[in-house]
Amino acid sequence: MRLIDCDVHVRWNSLDELGQYLDEPWRSRLLRGYISYAHNGYPHPFDTRRHDAIPPGGGSPGSDPHFTVEDLIERYNMDFVVLVGESSHLAISNLANPNWAAALASAYNDWMINRWFSADERFLGSIFVATQDPETAAREIERVADHPQFVQVALGSGTRFPYGQRYYHPIYAAAERHGLPIAIHPFTEGAGIAYAPTAAGYPSHYIEFHTCIPGSLQVHLVSMICEGIFETFPGLKLVIMEGGISWLPSLLWRLDKNWKSLRSEVSWVKRKPSDYAADHVRLTTQPLEEPEHPRHLRQILDMFPAERMLMFSSDYPHWDSDNPTRVLSHFPKDMQRRISAENARQLYGLPDHVRRADPAPVASPPQP
Amino acid sequence: MRLIDCDVHVRWNSLDELGQYLDEPWRSRLLRGYISYAHNGYPHPFDTRRHDAIPPGGGSPGSDPHFTVEDLIERYNMDFVVLVGESSHLAISNLANPNWAAALASAYNDWMINRWFSADERFLGSIFVATQDPETAAREIERVADHPQFVQVALGSGTRFPYGQRYYHPIYAAAERHGLPIAIHPFTEGAGIAYAPTAAGYPSHYIEFHTCIPGSLQVHLVSMICEGIFETFPGLKLVIMEGGISWLPSLLWRLDKNWKSLRSEVSWVKRKPSDYAADHVRLTTQPLEEPEHPRHLRQILDMFPAERMLMFSSDYPHWDSDNPTRVLSHFPKDMQRRISAENARQLYGLPDHVRRADPAPVASPPQP
Repeated sequence: MRLIDCDVHVRWNSLDELGQYLDEPWRSRLLRGYISYAHNGYPHPFDTRRHDAIPPGGGSPGSDPHFTVEDLIERYNMDFVVLVGESSHLAISNLANPNWAAALASAYNDWMINRWFSADERFLGSIFVATQDPETAAREIERVADHPQFVQVALGSGTRFPYGQRYYHPIYAAAERHGLPIAIHPFTEGAGIAYAPTAAGYPSHYIEFHTCIPGSLQVHLVSMICEGIFETFPGLKLVIMEGGISWLPSLLWRLDKNWKSLRSEVSWVKRKPSDYAADHVRLTTQPLEEPEHPRHLRQILDMFPAERMLMFSSDYPHWDSDNPTRVLSHFPKDMQRRISAENARQLYGLPDHVRRADPAPVASPPQP
Repeated sequence: MRLIDCDVHVRWNSLDELGQYLDEPWRSRLLRGYISYAHNGYPHPFDTRRHDAIPPGGGSPGSDPHFTVEDLIERYNMDFVVLVGESSHLAISNLANPNWAAALASAYNDWMINRWFSADERFLGSIFVATQDPETAAREIERVADHPQFVQVALGSGTRFPYGQRYYHPIYAAAERHGLPIAIHPFTEGAGIAYAPTAAGYPSHYIEFHTCIPGSLQVHLVSMICEGIFETFPGLKLVIMEGGISWLPSLLWRLDKNWKSLRSEVSWVKRKPSDYAADHVRLTTQPLEEPEHPRHLRQILDMFPAERMLMFSSDYPHWDSDNPTRVLSHFPKDMQRRISAENARQLYGLPDHVRRADPAPVASPPQP
């Protein structure tokens, strides 16, 4: 079976790796721990990373390109993997200072090109942007979008403004111009300048925080459909990452039902909401729900166009990553080819054979 | 078919109705509009109330006990209806001033007894409490709990603290002592001193706000299970109101899966989370999801103990209320009897024949 893994996490072993792509005064400030990241209040009770994924030479799981190739890409004979850095770095958009956030976004993108893309052509990546200043974010997309290994723009799900709001239009215009999907990744809820991480305030434990993660993803999806993002940017695609899949049908039933009675409020939403979802939205599969009775998952897959909308992901090397072989066996045989690789190949415009990277020259980071 | 309607909304035609149960200085302040209610930012684009439910003598839908008897109870030959006032009045818990909120809770409960319970024995009700001060809330439960027509304690879902947190224990202890379930009702999200109404901030439109309502209910359910509420208060039951039902299975799959790997963080959670839900949680059915293919709803009903956990509700006289006859036809024949009335009869300890109300004497409101 061909495999494209749509959610793989990589990180640096020390801030020096990132710092080399920062100008002063940011570099010195980063190295002395200046508001370096916006964390939320939910540490994992043991570890967010798999200890069996620690590279042989030591360091963090996911910090050694060659070991990631060996332990993931070659072990499972994957065509490509889509890197998303650490979700904590997506919380740059939750920092108070927009200039600092923009500098960290550019440094991340340069680190991705130099540390990961250059190591293997099967590494694809996600452009990080700082959403505090959408115009600067759009310029960052322009700066690096021509690199053929960047395949999407990644945003964290912990926000003050749901992603349908006009505020974000410059980011979507730039992404659409370059044929790049927007990917929303969770776990920045409640960090930094975002509001509380749930609609009911701050839960006490990681298990609660993690279980409720699909909540923010759902709000963004509803917001983007109801605000007409896919009418304003008809070429734009959305990837909803790492939130599982089984909540989608009931949400779209509720939204479709409400649209029938309330659409006068959002008259620009011309089609049934679930039709926009089918055409514009893709979900990565991990962490796949595992009901006690396997027929229940099969029934969920019958409730929406799963064979078009789902893209396999492992979330390697995180604690709850899905084993590729095992997780794909949950899907009906006739869906497996599309979900394991073909939907991602089509969405990201990837060649059927593994291509050679041909990096375009990269300009200096935009000045906010 | 026997019918017990578990979510019916009633209101006053003018604040005078409520004001007569308030002492000074609250009464004068209420009548001159003193921070009277904590509203959120989501007005309905046309009206939250059905115009065909306006009483013949005029006034608001749901404001005339005799017309509610005629238009709902007698039209559908219902055994009982459970009143929940207006959801906006549940936002007393979102007011900054705890004394003012407690006074409004007591006034509401007295109004319920005098205006509604005395008008018909088939009216049952929900004790309102102000959660800013859980000890005062517990005393308010003690004050009115012996009235046989009060069958539960109602809380709004828009909170700063998810309902599993210890802060709320005095309320649960009082409810358990009197055999009263806790009912959580949505639509106070984002009002007053609560945080933003969703995990992603403030959406722009009512259709988005309404579609995302199950989000807060899910957080409360996860919080109550993970904080061990049903271990600490083994006699306590929870009613989740007006959020639909189809989101439940996928949430519990995710929570059960997380519990398997993360339960060391919440070691007091001794059983599988979905087992607590089956034993302690009931959901009212409105607004029932209406997928394009009716088999999909039947499949959802197979994914959790629906025949035990669901209780019919109409949400009369709200804009999106479900027609009793029509909505019950969506359930398999062998579930209809329990969902239409028997689950509610068992939960609330209601007689099989319609009982005579025998009001207990009601003490003065507690002093905070």
